Order: sequence, then C-alpha cells, then structure tokens
Amino acid sequence: MSKGKYCLVTGGSGYIGSHTVVELCAAGYKCIVVDNLSNSSYESISRMEILTGQAIEFAQIDLCDSELLNKLFDDYEIDSVLHFAGLKAVGESSEVPLTYYFNNVVGTINLLNCMKSHGVRKLVFSSSATVYGDATRFENMIPIPETCPTGPTNPYGKTKLTIEDMMRDLHFSDNSFSFAILRYFNPIGAHPSGIIGEDPLGIPNNLLPFMAQVAVGRRKKLYVFGNDYDSVDGTPIRDYIHVVDLAKGHLAALEYLEHHPGVCREWNLGTGKGTTVLQMYTAFCAAIGSNLEYEITGRREGDVLNLTAKCDRATNELNWKAEHDVAKACVDLWKWTEDNPFGYQIKGTDAQFFGRAGDYSSRIVSLGKGTPFEVRIANVGGTIVDIVVNGSSVVTSLDNESEYKDCSNPYFGATVGPYANRISNGSFEIDGKKTELTLTEASNVCHSGINSYHTKKFLGPIVKNPEPHVWTADFLHVDEETELPAKLSTLVKYEVNSEKKTLTIEYESKVVGEGCTVANITNHTYFNLNKFNEPTIKGSKLQLVHNTGLEVNKKLIPTGNLTKFSEVATFNNEPTEITATNPVLDFCFVSGLPAKLDSRSSPLKTVFRLSNEEAKLQLEVATTEPTFQVYTGDYIHIQDKFESRAGICCEPGRYIDAINSSEWKSSVIVRENQTYGHRLAYIFKSLG
Amino acid sequence: MSKGKYCLVTGGSGYIGSHTVVELCAAGYKCIVVDNLSNSSYESISRMEILTGQAIEFAQIDLCDSELLNKLFDDYEIDSVLHFAGLKAVGESSEVPLTYYFNNVVGTINLLNCMKSHGVRKLVFSSSATVYGDATRFENMIPIPETCPTGPTNPYGKTKLTIEDMMRDLHFSDNSFSFAILRYFNPIGAHPSGIIGEDPLGIPNNLLPFMAQVAVGRRKKLYVFGNDYDSVDGTPIRDYIHVVDLAKGHLAALEYLEHHPGVCREWNLGTGKGTTVLQMYTAFCAAIGSNLEYEITGRREGDVLNLTAKCDRATNELNWKAEHDVAKACVDLWKWTEDNPFGYQIKGTDAQFFGRAGDYSSRIVSLGKGTPFEVRIANVGGTIVDIVVNGSSVVTSLDNESEYKDCSNPYFGATVGPYANRISNGSFEIDGKKTELTLTEASNVCHSGINSYHTKKFLGPIVKNPEPHVWTADFLHVDEETELPAKLSTLVKYEVNSEKKTLTIEYESKVVGEGCTVANITNHTYFNLNKFNEPTIKGSKLQLVHNTGLEVNKKLIPTGNLTKFSEVATFNNEPTEITATNPVLDFCFVSGLPAKLDSRSSPLKTVFRLSNEEAKLQLEVATTEPTFQVYTGDYIHIQDKFESRAGICCEPGRYIDAINSSEWKSSVIVRENQTYGHRLAYIFKSLG
Repeated sequence: MSKGKYCLVTGGSGYIGSHTVVELCAAGYKCIVVDNLSNSSYESISRMEILTGQAIEFAQIDLCDSELLNKLFDDYEIDSVLHFAGLKAVGESSEVPLTYYFNNVVGTINLLNCMKSHGVRKLVFSSSATVYGDATRFENMIPIPETCPTGPTNPYGKTKLTIEDMMRDLHFSDNSFSFAILRYFNPIGAHPSGIIGEDPLGIPNNLLPFMAQVAVGRRKKLYVFGNDYDSVDGTPIRDYIHVVDLAKGHLAALEYLEHHPGVCREWNLGTGKGTTVLQMYTAFCAAIGSNLEYEITGRREGDVLNLTAKCDRATNELNWKAEHDVAKACVDLWKWTEDNPFGYQIKGTDAQFFGRAGDYSSRIVSLGKGTPFEVRIANVGGTIVDIVVNGSSVVTSLDNESEYKDCSNPYFGATVGPYANRISNGSFEIDGKKTELTLTEASNVCHSGINSYHTKKFLGPIVKNPEPHVWTADFLHVDEETELPAKLSTLVKYEVNSEKKTLTIEYESKVVGEGCTVANITNHTYFNLNKFNEPTIKGSKLQLVHNTGLEVNKKLIPTGNLTKFSEVATFNNEPTEITATNPVLDFCFVSGLPAKLDSRSSPLKTVFRLSNEEAKLQLEVATTEPTFQVYTGDYIHIQDKFESRAGICCEPGRYIDAINSSEWKSSVIVRENQTYGHRLAYIFKSLG
Repeated sequence: MSKGKYCLVTGGSGYIGSHTVVELCAAGYKCIVVDNLSNSSYESISRMEILTGQAIEFAQIDLCDSELLNKLFDDYEIDSVLHFAGLKAVGESSEVPLTYYFNNVVGTINLLNCMKSHGVRKLVFSSSATVYGDATRFENMIPIPETCPTGPTNPYGKTKLTIEDMMRDLHFSDNSFSFAILRYFNPIGAHPSGIIGEDPLGIPNNLLPFMAQVAVGRRKKLYVFGNDYDSVDGTPIRDYIHVVDLAKGHLAALEYLEHHPGVCREWNLGTGKGTTVLQMYTAFCAAIGSNLEYEITGRREGDVLNLTAKCDRATNELNWKAEHDVAKACVDLWKWTEDNPFGYQIKGTDAQFFGRAGDYSSRIVSLGKGTPFEVRIANVGGTIVDIVVNGSSVVTSLDNESEYKDCSNPYFGATVGPYANRISNGSFEIDGKKTELTLTEASNVCHSGINSYHTKKFLGPIVKNPEPHVWTADFLHVDEETELPAKLSTLVKYEVNSEKKTLTIEYESKVVGEGCTVANITNHTYFNLNKFNEPTIKGSKLQLVHNTGLEVNKKLIPTGNLTKFSEVATFNNEPTEITATNPVLDFCFVSGLPAKLDSRSSPLKTVFRLSNEEAKLQLEVATTEPTFQVYTGDYIHIQDKFESRAGICCEPGRYIDAINSSEWKSSVIVRENQTYGHRLAYIFKSLG
C-alpha cells in the first residue's frame, strides 16, 4: 500500500477497531477512522494519539448517511477499508431486529457503494463466528472450520451473514474487489498499556467486561447464563482471543489482500482452544486476586453450546496465529479496568469543539467540570483557555480558535516551547554545531519564534479521573518541522485537583530519533483574579518569593548580574498593591532552585502569590524551575478586547538565554536518551 | 377489517400488485398504492380506476425514503399492508447486487419501522420460491413444501430471504405483528379484461412476457436458456400460476391474518403442477394460433432445474387454490398483448400533473403528442384543456386546475352533465315522482347547477393507441352525491385521430344501482381557430346545417315553436363573417336528427362549420344529437384574461328542458338497464 493513502477504519473508535488502529499505526498505515460514536467514545481515538504518537484523523459519520460518507471518500484518498462498524449485541438484536438490519446492512451497502464509485477495492470485514449458528448441530464440526454451513440463530448473526453474502455477491459481479471476511470468535482483554480497552455503554453484553465491572464494584455480581450445557462444567464453551492478537489478524488479512487482489475469502480468527464461562471466571479471579460473586441463571436466548474455531486456514494463509492466552488477556483487562474503572465515561469532564463543529482534532477538554474548580484546555497549543474558580473565570482568554492562532495572541494560556523566553541573536552552538533561528525581535528570538508550540495541534489527551476530585489530561506534542537541531516529543500532563483548587502541569520532553536540541517549556497563562468585576489586574496584590532577578542589557539579554526589583514585596512583606500603572514588570526573578535538565525531582516551591480581596481569591504559583518571569501584561492591549494589564503572568523556566551561557547551558540541552522535565502548579485559595 | 381504513399496497402499480389491487377493490377494501414507478407505470392505476369503478389513491414514494413513507402513514389510517415493492430480476441481481440489497432490504426495513411506529400490524409479503434455491439438491423435495430448507442462489433470492428473516425476527421480538409470507412460483397471464397485465420495461426477464413481445413483433425470437436440464424436454420446470389466482391468494392470506392475529407463517402460492419452458411455449403458440421462432441458448446464471410447489398448506389453511391452467393464462396474456402491444408504454401520449406536483389524481393526459393534432384532457371534469392543431392552440383555456374549478369558469372545455342546458324551474317529474334542484339562474337550473360534472374528478383514463395515428382515452365518472333521483356512471371516450385531425367524443351513461334519472351530456369547448393572432373569434366565418332552432320565452325555456336565426349562413350559403359584435348567438339549433336516449346509433352529422383564413384552418362539429346550441361567448369576459367573444361553442345535445316536455322526455330519462349515449366529433382541416 502506498503510505500516502489512507486506510479507512469504520467503527475504529470501538473495542476491536481501536486496537486494530493502534496496530495499523505501528505498521506505518495512515488511518482515518469513521464512527457514529453510538456505542463508543472519541476518547479512544484521543488516547490512541498518545499511544501511537501520531494524529489520527477522525470523522463522526454514520455509515447510514451516504452523503457524508461519499464526501469523505471524495476528500480522502482511501486505499483500503477495515469495516468494524455495526451493532453487535446478540440479545439486543432479538429485541430490536429492525434496528440491527438497518444499521448493519444499510451502513455496509453505503460503504460498498462508496468504494465502488471511488475505486477502492480492498476491504477487511469484521464478521463473527455467530454466522455458523450452533455448529454442534452437525457431527464433527467442532472446532468449526470455515466450511461449516452457516445458520445464524439471531438477528445480529443474520446481519453479519447478509453482509458476507453482499460481499460475495459484489465480488461475483466484479472481481476487482478483494474481501477478507474475518469471523471472530470471542475477543477479550485490552491493550497492555492500559490506555485503551473495551468500554461498553450500559450493561455489558459480554462475559469479561461484565466481570471487570463487578471487580471494580460497578455491578454487584456476575450472572452465568445457563450451566446445563453439555460441557465439563455445564457452561458454554467459547474461543476467547486476545484483542491484540485479533487486531494483528486484521493486519495479516490486509497484507494478504495486498498480495492477492481479487480474492474474496473467509477466515476464522480464534485460538482453537475452548474455554468455558466458569473456566474464564476462574482465570479472571486469579488475575485480580479475589473471587467475584456470581449467580447461575437461565440460558440466554440465542446462545449456543460451543463456538471454538478451527484456525488452520488463517495460520496457513495469513501466516497469523493468536499468541496470548486467556490468563494474559485477564491481566491486561484488569490493568485497563483498574486504570479506567469507568472506561472512557469519566464524570467531571467533557469536551467541546473548539474550531469547526465536528472537527475532533480541535477540541477543548474540561477537567473538574461541575466542581468549584474547572480547567479547560484546548488541543491548539495545549492551551489553557479557562480556569473557573468558584464559578468565575480567572484567566485572560480569547473567544475562539482563530483568535488563539492569530499572531496578535500574546500567548494567552499557551504552552510556550520548545524554548521559552529569549535566545540572544537567535543563535547558539551545541558541540560546536551552530544553529541560527529566524529572529522575531530586533536581535533575539523570543518564545521559540516561528517554531512556537502555541498554535500547533497537540495530540490526545488521555483524560483520567484517578481519584475523586482529581482529573488528569495528558497531551502530547511531537515536532514536525523545526529550525532547531532535532525534533522533540513533549508530553504535557495537566492535573486538576478540585478539592485543593490546584492545577499542576508537568512537561516531559525527549528527542525524537537522533541528535540533540534545546528545551525550555512553560505555561503562559495570564491571570486576573477579579476579572468578573474589573478588566485589569488593578487592585490585586502581589508578593514574590524573592524580588531579585536577572539584570538584562538593552537587548533584554542577561548581563550575568543580579538586580533587585524592590517595588515588589517578598513573602515577608506586606503585599504590593497593583495599580493601573504600577508596578510595570517584565522581569525574570530567581527562585532559589537549581537549574537542572529535569527539574521535576526538585521540590515544588511557591514563588508567586497574587490575591484579590474583592474576588476573595488567592493564587500561588509553585515551580521546580530556577527562575520565573513576571509580566504585568502592559503590552497586551488588543483593540475592543483587552486593555493593557488585563492579566498577569508568572512563567517559571530556565535562565534567559541559558543556551548561550556556559554556566546554564547544560540545563537546556536535551540529548538522546535524556529527558527534559519541569513541574509547576497554580494553587488557588478562597479568602475569607 | 374496518372498511374505513386503508390497505396499503406497496408496488401496487406493478404486475402482481395491480392485479391484487383489483381483487382487493372488488372485495371492498379501500386501497392506497405506493410505488416509486421505477419499473412500473401509473397507467396501471389509472386503468384500474376504470376497471374497478373507484378512485385508487396513489403516492409515488420510494420505500427507501423513510421520511415520505412516514408522512404517508401519518396521513392515512392504514390497517394492513401488502408488500410487493422490490426489484425482481434474477439476472440483474447478480450484476448489481448492492442495488438489490439496498432497494429490497432498506425499503422493507423502512416499511416495517413505519408499521411499528404507527401501530399497523398486518402484512402480506411478496416472497418468492427463489428462497428455496435448487430444491433438487435434497431428495424428495419436489414438489417443494414450505419446510424445504432455504438456500437462495442469487442476490435477488437472498434479499427475499433476508426480508423473510427480518419479518420472522420482528415477529419474534413483538408477536403483535402478523406476517403472511407468500412464496410465489411463476406468475403469468393477465386480467381477462385485457385492461391490465404485465408491462416489463426493457427486455422482459420472464418467459411469457418475452414470448408475448415476440408474438407482437417487438422481439425477433424467443431464447430458451438451456435444454440440458433433467426434464422431459431438457428445459427447466416451473410452476406457472395465473396472476389472478395469485392475487386472490393475497386476499385469502390477508383474511387469514385478520382471523389469526400474531401469526407469522410462510405459504407457497403455486399450482402444484410443473410445466417445462417448451411446454409453455407450445401452450402459448396454441393461444395465439401460430408458431413463434425460438432458439436454444446456454443456461442462465442462477436458474435451477425445478421449482414446483407443494400447495397443500395454502389449500388447507388459506382455503385457496389456483383455478386457472396455463392455457387460460396464455389466452388472457394474449388478449392483454393484442390490446396493448406496447403495454402501458404508448408513443404519442404523456401526462403532466394538473394540480399539485405528485398528485396523480389530477393529471392532464396528452393524446397525439408530437403530431400535428394533440388533445390534452384533464381528470378534472374530463376537461379538454387544449387542442393544438399544426402547433397552434385553438381552444380557449385557463391556466391551472384551480381556475378550472373556480365558479367564474364558463365551462371551458368542460364535460357538461349530467344534464346540460336548462331545466325549467329546476324541477321535473318522472313516473309521478317530483325532483327539485337548487336553482342557478333566476328560475332555471343550467348545466346541472350544483351537480355539475365540470369540477369533479374523473377516473382513469385508459389510454390506448389501437392503430397508428389513433389514440383513445376513456374516462369514467361515477356520481357520488347528487340532487338528481339516481346516480349515473358515465364513460367518456375520447378518440384522437391525428391524421384526420379529428377528436371524437362518446358518452355512455348507466344508472348506478336502482332508480332512474335524467341525462344530457355534452362537451362545452370554446374554439378560436385564430387564437395565436387574435384574442377573439372576430374574423372567423360560420355556417350551420340549419339556421332554424328553438324559440324560447323570457325565461329562456322553449315555447314549442321553431324560429329562424337568419343572420347565420347555412351550408348552402356564403359563410357569415363573425365581427367584433355580430352575430350574437346563444341559440339552440335543430340538427334534423331524431331525439333518442342512445343517439350513438344515429349517423354523425356535420352541423357546424367554422373557418379562419388567417389561421388557414376549418373546424366542423358533427353529432348524433337532435339539437346544437351555438354560443358566441359574449358573456365570458374574465378580467385581465379573456375578452367577450374569446371563443365560440357548439354544444350538441337533447332539446332544452326535454325532461319537462312530453314529446322529448323519453330521450333524457335513463332507467335501470338502459343506456344513455351520444357521439360528437370535432373535425379540423387545414385550408390552403
């Protein structure tokens, strides 16, 4: 496959789809996922961006909407399709059969029509062993070969068979089509990273997710549907396959189609090994280290005794074989479940579109939503677009994505990087190798200049709720083009603690590939604690840990001397009241902490304290960095929008121009296998 | 079934659907037909209106358009559904399988969803014996019972089976649904009236229609697909069933559902008797009295050897049995084919909507379209809305349906009835029984008054093209409410001869049910031969057969004396030139023909001659009636639309107020078992 073309993954935000997308990305495929999100969450895509380190295109499209689907085929050069989308609950399918026929069959017809009209000829289809029905109705059909006559016993299985039939019929009418029909047995487990996994909405239909929910207390006990089957322990036998094995089976099938154009063929994807429900229960209990409560109830409509796969065809033809056993699957499922007890369905968070409605690549994620401390972060620049304390916004912010991307944006809420503050003459040398950057000031580069992160799309986030009142969102930025000597991969971890009203930010950067480069990353949020009553910081009070900082020359580059900014109070003194005109600060103070490449091991030290009596609010900024720039925002006037001094910044970071100082240089150079790190916290406190 | 509710017939304009609608109407069901007309013609519905004598509601809806379909279910109270709609060509289905799956499956899902949401619970489904596939793959499965395992061998059959499955699944999920799944064997033949039949667009897929087209010369010869099957003559065996038998099977099934709510069951509809292709060929040749050319070619993809039905289940449970043999079917097919060699696809005609777009109940049918003599007739009033001679319109006409229905319409192009011209005091006696009508003039009723036909919907038409240059359109009007002593059923037959530039109109009325009433029906077209150049009849020249007519009193009622209108020339004299003011005529001339109840046996006598030198055109009016009213249109001024004298009428008919004259009375009273009749002709001739 031409790597420039897309692999379209329908239902790619679902359980099996998402695991397959991860494998596709790892194998170098460029994926575009479509999903109607009716039974899945965009969060899986967002998380996969972090897991794979690459942007994953996504379009929320229902395959039943042929117009939108056609437009997608017009807009993207699609080379192959992996078709996972479909409703999949056996029990539900008997209750609302028309819904199943409509969604599954119509969606597929539309997809095939789009492929036909756009010259797309390869498709891997997510079929199911359910098409065989009860294979025990024949003699010697367990394990089930692909040649077993079909005979699905429920509407879900019938829709799968109808779709298979359509593909066979379409192939018969036009053998330029290639179809790999994969009949899954029972997919279980999760990605070993614990980042993605199965996230059923509502009551899980399948055994393992149900057990996992019992294990984390979301369900009271496990129900075993029938123990009067003809098996060792009376419970039905299934062939459970690790979802990552299954995902890899899709890659094998896709590769097969690439080398066998014009084929239309069915392959079982299973392990060949049957496990009863109670055996599975035992394996899962072993993985979690405790015994779950369970109850035997009556048989479930549509269930059959045994569905164990004969997998020789896949082994021989696709050169693929399941590698993991059910014990491993249980361990991985348990990691996923412990890390994400509610899957992707996390209380206290939500997301809105930031740019165009429906453009999932630009969203704002809210952490602590519904609590007295909410932080809203955009993918654009990993920008803090708002912090709402006790219901009031306390940061200076813009109205929409394009304003944030506009060159007049004075780094509101921005992640500043890869190199914050100034580089003298925009040039530096590492190991005798000189780098010259495009200047953005008279003689310097400030805040990375044209390489700046603040308008770039950040990948992710992974949002979690690791404990009550705590939400985390990890964003990733991977440099694409840069004037700097190497590319960085930067993880930005936001942690919101709504009880402590604290936002902690952590930066972690590594070089991508070979070489070394510079890093100095910080956050540039402007605060106005009394924004609701007063458009400027006038009336707030300020104290700093020290009022000593770096003396700079006329070009704003440190002279090497320290100087004192005695207009501003230290923590030992009465705070300085900020007026409409005083103090005017754009000054780099020292924190008293050492300069290290990875400062995260240093203690978080409070360096800045701002309070406002009218707002009854105090903000402290704590950092692990050696300096912090304080800027009273005197030059951020934007016509009809912001006055001067609309907000105040505290930007912890490395020494200004450290890269050109023999003393501080080592704190900003990131070499292969090294990690740049930095932590800071915004700590709010209600007053009186 | 409550007779007030509708039976929805999907695909009801198609072959089997239309024959079933006829049987449903005959059994007292009120039908609404929906069809996308993709493979059928509204003409079948139009014809069925005449055949059944009732209006048949029709909506052009594709079942795949769920919004329109839902609206239909909102608008009509539907009690049951007969579901015929679907693509049905086996061979084509292998070429464009997606089209088949989409149309057949999606259409049905939408239909079932509408039923579900609107509480409609009874459906009779048009399935097919094709769902069995090749039943000879089993031992002892011929004749095929309903218990034969399914296994369709082509996409068409698979869509039928998928739909059956959906119905069974829906029934399983909600057994308030009742489904009768009818598996047809091979429907053949046509309605014995020859009015409706099978009308395949393009090349027929089935044996009989193909043979019929060979018989009328539309195809060169018959192709027999394979003579190497294991049958007596090597050709495949089918169970051919007369379409009227099949239609009656649907009624039996519908009735069964009414008495067995909550059932979902399959029934074969066949004869139980197998016939080979060559046996069928022989039977058809016998019916037409000649041997058709045929050629044996290779087998056709998807065909199987034998599909003969075991019909016991239908016989026992539905109390239904096929009554006609293949010989009768061939005879009926041949009548249909001879009467309609091109089915409903008639050259030189078309139809436009007259009222709202999509409202098939109000159309204009064009006869002789594309020839030098075109007549356009609307369902509203059976009105002649235009006659176009040599490309120029020669009749005074209105712009749209609502103008024709407006009370200011001076009977332009109208069918005037049931009683044209005046009834003195609006009252009369028949057999001593007095009738009093609502007056429309000071002391008379004119042109039937509030009972007038000219704004009523006429049923039909049946359009035919019995010979080159000749088109006929038969409309039917059946009285609904009337002040007259009985209801009439009136057939209006238009015949357009484009070579002779002649429009002949024939009226034929009978009493509906019991009683007797009056009739005097005529056409009220206003002519202006030079309309293109001159908005009035000024400049045209007039001659009449006689210039003697009925003297009337001040109330415009005949005195019993004759009088002469000597301003107008007779055929023996130089024609009278019509000026802007003279002559002013609204006078009833005598034709010299006798007054009869059914005057059609009288010779057509030319009574009126109009010519125009500028238009180079002459019109003669011929009639079988004793009188003709000539009206120079002096009172038809409509503001901004028509001047006085915009057209001239010649309205042949019975004596004015005949019903109140002992001498003429018998010519206008229609008793049970009597027929009122009248013929007239408009004969145009190009001059110079």
